[in-house]
Amino acid sequence: MRTVDPVKHAAKRRRILEAAAACFAEKGFHGTRTADICARAGMSPGNVFHYFPSKHAIIAALIEQDGAETADHLAALTTAKDPLAALFGLVNDVVNLAADPAYAGLALDTAAEAQRDEHIAALLARNDRALRAGIAGLLRRAAADGGIDATLDPDATATWIAAQIDGLFARVATDPEFAPLEQAPMLRLLLTRFLGARPAR
Amino acid sequence: MRTVDPVKHAAKRRRILEAAAACFAEKGFHGTRTADICARAGMSPGNVFHYFPSKHAIIAALIEQDGAETADHLAALTTAKDPLAALFGLVNDVVNLAADPAYAGLALDTAAEAQRDEHIAALLARNDRALRAGIAGLLRRAAADGGIDATLDPDATATWIAAQIDGLFARVATDPEFAPLEQAPMLRLLLTRFLGARPAR
Repeated sequence: MRTVDPVKHAAKRRRILEAAAACFAEKGFHGTRTADICARAGMSPGNVFHYFPSKHAIIAALIEQDGAETADHLAALTTAKDPLAALFGLVNDVVNLAADPAYAGLALDTAAEAQRDEHIAALLARNDRALRAGIAGLLRRAAADGGIDATLDPDATATWIAAQIDGLFARVATDPEFAPLEQAPMLRLLLTRFLGARPAR
Repeated sequence: MRTVDPVKHAAKRRRILEAAAACFAEKGFHGTRTADICARAGMSPGNVFHYFPSKHAIIAALIEQDGAETADHLAALTTAKDPLAALFGLVNDVVNLAADPAYAGLALDTAAEAQRDEHIAALLARNDRALRAGIAGLLRRAAADGGIDATLDPDATATWIAAQIDGLFARVATDPEFAPLEQAPMLRLLLTRFLGARPAR
């Protein structure tokens, strides 16, 4: 009987996803053919097909991977001593992602794809809910220890922090002169004032 | 000699654009065929083709029309007595557009299209520059008459107000429970705090 080695299986899956992400970053979803991904991964089409039956399945897996990484990140922050500093750290990590052309391109392509693909939209919405819940958790703790204005509704506030993050990526897409790293202080000022946050320690 | 009646020409052009916008709202850019637009406008393909040689040309014309309407709107605000109230009025108008499924769908489809079409991206970037310049003008006047924190850089601040607007549309796309009209007070609070604005009169 043929058995599947789960470690090898996961490694091959990861190899395909890395190859796909690199192709998508260069050529976008629509400019990338499955054959490009196979060539980049150094695998035969039959072998890649065994892991992912379509380009759609690869895109979906990349979104799930992104969601899993964000979930790990948020889980690690739930025990952070200073929830406000943890929130600003999270926003800073997102700014760094927006400044990475490969990641930003993938995020924008994914958002565009969601406009025409309900499954992709549902996966993105799930990641988004998890991100907002994580941010709301940090806001609750920050309000409880006096770090931010406690009269703000944490869920509604988390929604608008998510909107800032969306806006950050949209700026990258729309304005060729928008440089996320240079803009980070302005975003921090905006959030500090919105949250009625105590000055950074 | 055959002459062109400019009034009739403009009216026909408008009729095609209205028909196209209605089709796009229902089926998206990619789900709409040129034949759908002709049928909706009650015109023959040859007649429509005389005005717009392609679906791309129709999309481009809709973006130019949107830009012209925004420019008119911004021009009217340059003489507003209370620039801060004018800015909040403008944001309110945008919230109403985001709450209109037809407009929001068109805006999101357009943003997605810009990811793969440089001409569409350039038209959107031009509209965006004009919007930011208009907002920065209102901010300069509001700062001069003591309505907002005068230490904020008007251009950088306008960029982040544009990011809010992008974020608003992105929320509509991502979160099925996000209702722009219900969210308007939170956006207003966010902007009031960010701008260090005096309380509304």
